[in-house]
Amino acid sequence: MAAERVVVIGGDAAGMSAASRARRGRTPEELEIVAFERSRFTSYSACGIPYWVGGDVPARGALIARTPEEHRARGIGLRTRTEVTEIDLAGGRVRARDLEAGTEAWTGFDHLVVATGARPVRPALPGIGAPGVHGVQTLDDGQALLDSLAATPGGRAVVVGAGYIGVEMAEALLKRGYEVTVVHSGEQPMATLDPDMGRLVHRAMDGLGITTVGGAAVTALRTGADGRVREVVTENAAYPADVVVLGIGVEPETELARAAGLPVGPHGGLLTDLSMRVRGHGNVWAGGDCVEVLDLVSGATRHVALGTHANKHGQIIGANLSGGYATFPGVVGTAVSKVCDLEIARTGLREKDAHRAGLQYVTATVEATSRAGYVPGAAPMTVKMLAERRTGRLLGAQIVGREGAAKRVDIAAVALTAGLTVERMITLDLGYAPPFSPVWDPVLVAARRADAAVRAAGW
Amino acid sequence: MAAERVVVIGGDAAGMSAASRARRGRTPEELEIVAFERSRFTSYSACGIPYWVGGDVPARGALIARTPEEHRARGIGLRTRTEVTEIDLAGGRVRARDLEAGTEAWTGFDHLVVATGARPVRPALPGIGAPGVHGVQTLDDGQALLDSLAATPGGRAVVVGAGYIGVEMAEALLKRGYEVTVVHSGEQPMATLDPDMGRLVHRAMDGLGITTVGGAAVTALRTGADGRVREVVTENAAYPADVVVLGIGVEPETELARAAGLPVGPHGGLLTDLSMRVRGHGNVWAGGDCVEVLDLVSGATRHVALGTHANKHGQIIGANLSGGYATFPGVVGTAVSKVCDLEIARTGLREKDAHRAGLQYVTATVEATSRAGYVPGAAPMTVKMLAERRTGRLLGAQIVGREGAAKRVDIAAVALTAGLTVERMITLDLGYAPPFSPVWDPVLVAARRADAAVRAAGW
Repeated sequence: MAAERVVVIGGDAAGMSAASRARRGRTPEELEIVAFERSRFTSYSACGIPYWVGGDVPARGALIARTPEEHRARGIGLRTRTEVTEIDLAGGRVRARDLEAGTEAWTGFDHLVVATGARPVRPALPGIGAPGVHGVQTLDDGQALLDSLAATPGGRAVVVGAGYIGVEMAEALLKRGYEVTVVHSGEQPMATLDPDMGRLVHRAMDGLGITTVGGAAVTALRTGADGRVREVVTENAAYPADVVVLGIGVEPETELARAAGLPVGPHGGLLTDLSMRVRGHGNVWAGGDCVEVLDLVSGATRHVALGTHANKHGQIIGANLSGGYATFPGVVGTAVSKVCDLEIARTGLREKDAHRAGLQYVTATVEATSRAGYVPGAAPMTVKMLAERRTGRLLGAQIVGREGAAKRVDIAAVALTAGLTVERMITLDLGYAPPFSPVWDPVLVAARRADAAVRAAGW
Repeated sequence: MAAERVVVIGGDAAGMSAASRARRGRTPEELEIVAFERSRFTSYSACGIPYWVGGDVPARGALIARTPEEHRARGIGLRTRTEVTEIDLAGGRVRARDLEAGTEAWTGFDHLVVATGARPVRPALPGIGAPGVHGVQTLDDGQALLDSLAATPGGRAVVVGAGYIGVEMAEALLKRGYEVTVVHSGEQPMATLDPDMGRLVHRAMDGLGITTVGGAAVTALRTGADGRVREVVTENAAYPADVVVLGIGVEPETELARAAGLPVGPHGGLLTDLSMRVRGHGNVWAGGDCVEVLDLVSGATRHVALGTHANKHGQIIGANLSGGYATFPGVVGTAVSKVCDLEIARTGLREKDAHRAGLQYVTATVEATSRAGYVPGAAPMTVKMLAERRTGRLLGAQIVGREGAAKRVDIAAVALTAGLTVERMITLDLGYAPPFSPVWDPVLVAARRADAAVRAAGW
């Protein structure tokens, strides 16, 4: 009989990372670990679904980092197809329903890990549940979409939403031979960029043959006589669709946690301290897509649903559960994506984020190439930087370009973490050789321009 | 008549960047700028010569960022084919020889910029000056090598030295259809890496069909009856050669400056303050390959011949000459290179550098992939990290791998600049999406391992 028991709610990145890390640090005799997962799958890459749908990834199995059987073999008491329906904090127990058998039972815990993830936003539109309308949140979603595509080959696809999932799914559907229209409500696609940078994405999508319709609020999904989706309807138009993919964002899945009285923040995510312990609750931990994290640039919390953070949170929770000590200092808001050969990256604050944070800033936008201009394959990229007025501290960077554009944002991400000024960034000792960078790396060129803008703005 | 005159010695990256930047900040009426260059060329990319020789860059002209005529049109009094033969600091003048006319004349200065670059190391070996033996330091060197290759197509090439130039030239000669042998004196190629990482380069070069001979000191270059090189001779063997390329390093070109009494450091480079002013000389500036720079990790000076630093130095000198204010804080020792599709990168200290600096450290080496493992094109890379014992401060990183390996070193370069610990690096918010990175970026995996090593090493 183990001295203590940890109960984990949610068997994907955060939950199973926490469980695995705790298992490595404590024997089963010291710590029993029980994890509940409502689906059949554990530890899979939801971020990989667009590449599976697009055909780059041959099979679903490739997206699964560790199966339920593998977790069990490592000494984790994993119960799949089992959904936690209630958390009783005072009683130190959770109630879970076996979705196959329909039975419910209570399980006591000494420590609880809430890793319930995020759920896709689903506005109550007519037809939103019709056959042919798909999300891409889970592996089952991905399989259902692939089945739908098999039934309507080479038809017309409408993607609703032009964020990361939206543009990645546009690429996937294009690769599957569909005529693709992206309908979104923003001024430009990729609202995670400033509109001037989003415009570059719009232009590139045009060039790829993807029709992008901005400023369009979807009002209904019209179905045919067979009940299948036929059209995406906006206030001003209707777009024929054999298949519809919804990429309109996600929100923290915290219903269970709220019902138990755990604290949530302005973005609907659970609030934790830096060790990922839920605020005010000594033995409850939370991580992954269901929490809010500190934005190190703005000083406020935000919700960022990304597997890379979820994995880190899990590691940190697991280390803390097993007698170690680790913290998650926060994020700077880095994200990268691509549409075919167009790479898109951002980190830190957009202009409107800076406004909201009460920061005054200057901007600089430059065009440069990924390699020395004389080397074959040198590809253009546009880099935009925001720097704080007066101090010159870097506030954010956005990059749109071809090969070599996206991961360059990591330079700015580390600079933001360290609080570097754009002036200090000018002399960063970055890797230089003609096949990898011009003698002035595009990020350095942007820093120079931003520094000049800070100086020009005066005090 | 201008109020003041700047004399610049050397018309490549540092010198002409300084001249151009000063010109933008001051009118010709305020500041006269005279620049002396002994060759026919200005502002060219010596780093690009291997790609020109290899055929990736079609013509020499592509390597020239700005021609003498372009500089003159911008108001710089440039004199090419004119070599400065003496600096008279007390008299505030330099003596220059017109290499075409053979005449000499003195030119007075109010400010002097020494940008004399580096010269290739040329041991006094028998046959080192023979036809068929080539350096690749200047555009004329490159042209002479190309002419030599045209005369001995598809023959046997021996590269002496296995540093950046050595491995890049091995690739270039391979592309030209040569049977390539690299002879070097180190334990492994790329002595700028630790030997365990150099071994990976060795293995990859083997795989590319490049013969690499280590631990071999060249004793002579044997010539044939026609006087042309025929063999590279070492203590134990002789390697047939139709063409020989020397890539055995460079040293600061400071003869002129030393003769004038300017201070040089332990690596033979001029010593400057942070504004690139030569120490103890209020009106003399120096930058580029002829100076030593502060290594921010070891705290000592070092000599790094790289166009990216030279350009930065030039900008800083030019800004300071024209009433602005800028400084060069130092380097962290970043360098990237490639041999065919193998990418090689380093930043910070190697193990022996750490020893020399009096630092105790731990190391961690990991293998990871450039993209999520399930995405086509995911390429393996090896990342080695050094962290200071006890504090966990990052001391250095080395990366050898395929696509996406080299520029990842920039993450470590910025972290070194900011003095981050490997523990802090674990939670860096780097760009993540399956086509660009696994959910744990290889650099983060290495940081995790290095952090574990720091903890295991105790206090």
